[in-house]
Amino acid sequence: MMLRNIKLTIEYDGTYFEGWQVQRENQKTVQGEIEKALKKILKEKIRITGSGRTDSGVHALGQVANFKTKSEKKISEILNALNGNLTKDIVILKAEDAPLDFHAQYSVKTKTYRYTILNRETRCAQQKKLCLFYPYKLNLRLMREEAKCLVGLNDFKSFQASDPARRLKQKKGSTVRTIKKIDIRKKGDYIYIDIEANGFLYKMVRNIVGTLLEIGHGRLLKGSMKQILSQKNRDSAGYAAKAKGLSLLQVTYGS
Amino acid sequence: MMLRNIKLTIEYDGTYFEGWQVQRENQKTVQGEIEKALKKILKEKIRITGSGRTDSGVHALGQVANFKTKSEKKISEILNALNGNLTKDIVILKAEDAPLDFHAQYSVKTKTYRYTILNRETRCAQQKKLCLFYPYKLNLRLMREEAKCLVGLNDFKSFQASDPARRLKQKKGSTVRTIKKIDIRKKGDYIYIDIEANGFLYKMVRNIVGTLLEIGHGRLLKGSMKQILSQKNRDSAGYAAKAKGLSLLQVTYGS
Repeated sequence: MMLRNIKLTIEYDGTYFEGWQVQRENQKTVQGEIEKALKKILKEKIRITGSGRTDSGVHALGQVANFKTKSEKKISEILNALNGNLTKDIVILKAEDAPLDFHAQYSVKTKTYRYTILNRETRCAQQKKLCLFYPYKLNLRLMREEAKCLVGLNDFKSFQASDPARRLKQKKGSTVRTIKKIDIRKKGDYIYIDIEANGFLYKMVRNIVGTLLEIGHGRLLKGSMKQILSQKNRDSAGYAAKAKGLSLLQVTYGS
Repeated sequence: MMLRNIKLTIEYDGTYFEGWQVQRENQKTVQGEIEKALKKILKEKIRITGSGRTDSGVHALGQVANFKTKSEKKISEILNALNGNLTKDIVILKAEDAPLDFHAQYSVKTKTYRYTILNRETRCAQQKKLCLFYPYKLNLRLMREEAKCLVGLNDFKSFQASDPARRLKQKKGSTVRTIKKIDIRKKGDYIYIDIEANGFLYKMVRNIVGTLLEIGHGRLLKGSMKQILSQKNRDSAGYAAKAKGLSLLQVTYGS
């Protein structure tokens, strides 16, 4: 029996999960649900590795994970059995055999997160769990302009989690990351903010988007983003946007 | 106190409702929920009239209803109070004062229904309650071609409900309607079928879309739609598509 390394691409509605990662028993997590289904299908205890954790309430359209197994089941059989055994809130979009050295977390090249914002006066009935409701007028042109200074290699210390326990943990690591692209688009009443980077600090996307919304609404002035970035201090930035409209859109890997 | 006629434009996620219309007590219906909220706000028993009923599980992005009241509350106040008091599955998009002779059902010029179909191999986690999952290949070109014969004034008897009780009821009425437009579009993995008509027979949209899917999948041959239409017999048409992907998109009124 040969060892195989299987890569999964995963979509989920994060509303009813306590995030991606299994942390303690009796928590409903995406990772936990997939491991439970794999155990049932492959009759072995499987541990999967995600590209990174997503917070409670955060969704995914293209989360990636991998696991090793000696099972000889056909890949299409594994895919179908997984989707048949998983809760309706999780779907495996793709299952593929990957090289043995593929690691869903360490091999990441970039990740893209998307914030979906409903920007109209009345809330939303159909997409209520998938978007952030923001009823105030937004100056998108200014938001795009201000976002520009974030693109490239920067110390994003001002945008890391303000949660003290986390902050302590993160102190050891570097707060330098490279944002490849920030794209702000409007389509009907929806605004999509896509951020692609080689990595994200804990709550970095939510803090950046919260700050962008304050700028767009006029509570932070032109030039604020550059100033906040240079201060390297979490207290300078705007509030963290709620998890609700956030989705892990795509993970790319080095060739 | 002057009598006012108030027009509401309504979005809802129909998943957890037994349709639009109040039929008996203890049923959770969209109409019932709005009437309950109005009673609380206006302190009078209000009966609202919808543009038409929607079935259990059917959604709406632009249902229209009206009601009469002697209340002198500002229209914006009524709108905000309604959205504050309604369940998260219903939102009033617009409230406006209408002429006294405006009637949400009798004044209808056209209605547009949309079917949202997810056409890929794996089911959907994020939009699962708002789309119909159809995993088989579809020939959209043929579907568009076959749909053409439905446009215009036709006897849609072949597409009316097969439910015997309903059929009996409908026997008295005409089964002639005018379809103004059928639009079939693909965007990513989603297919949208929009049908605009001056009116619809009970389950007509679901029967037409079910038949279109059978044509697209190759289970019904080219020319089938024309033949089914001319037979004026429900047994000729394809199955009724599930309610899940169906949404009342828009209602227009005569000028």
